Amino acid sequence: MVDFIGFMAAICTTLAFVPQALKTIDTRDTASISLWMYVIFTMGVLLWLVYGLAIDNWPIIVANFVTFALSATILWFKIKHK
Amino acid sequence: MVDFIGFMAAICTTLAFVPQALKTIDTRDTASISLWMYVIFTMGVLLWLVYGLAIDNWPIIVANFVTFALSATILWFKIKHK
Repeated sequence: MVDFIGFMAAICTTLAFVPQALKTIDTRDTASISLWMYVIFTMGVLLWLVYGLAIDNWPIIVANFVTFALSATILWFKIKHK
Repeated sequence: MVDFIGFMAAICTTLAFVPQALKTIDTRDTASISLWMYVIFTMGVLLWLVYGLAIDNWPIIVANFVTFALSATILWFKIKHK
């Protein structure tokens, strides 16, 4: 049960970036999105990925690989369309 | 060293929401922010908090308590000013 809560938590905080990435790709509007949020967040997710690889933890690796792709996409649009 | 990478990762993915929350409070502009991202993300962070409490892990509890406060603030403004 506890593992299931952790699993659902990871699913939510990873997949949450899907609607944001789709909206950003679709509208190209990033005016109210914070550049610094995505700079710091993308760097943080990259560090989580390195951490996951270092301790050989597959859930951390997979979740952060997906989140990195989404977060980096949003950051890319923010930089291109700011 | 590995613990330090994990610690820096947690700091980044938590504090990243500070500039977004400040920008949102300041401008009240949430047009390009995805409602669904913050609905799913805030729920996910709440699940992480429950998970941290269940396994008695203080780093998870503290990081997600802070992230929850920031994410819920952004979600609140998104709902109020959409």
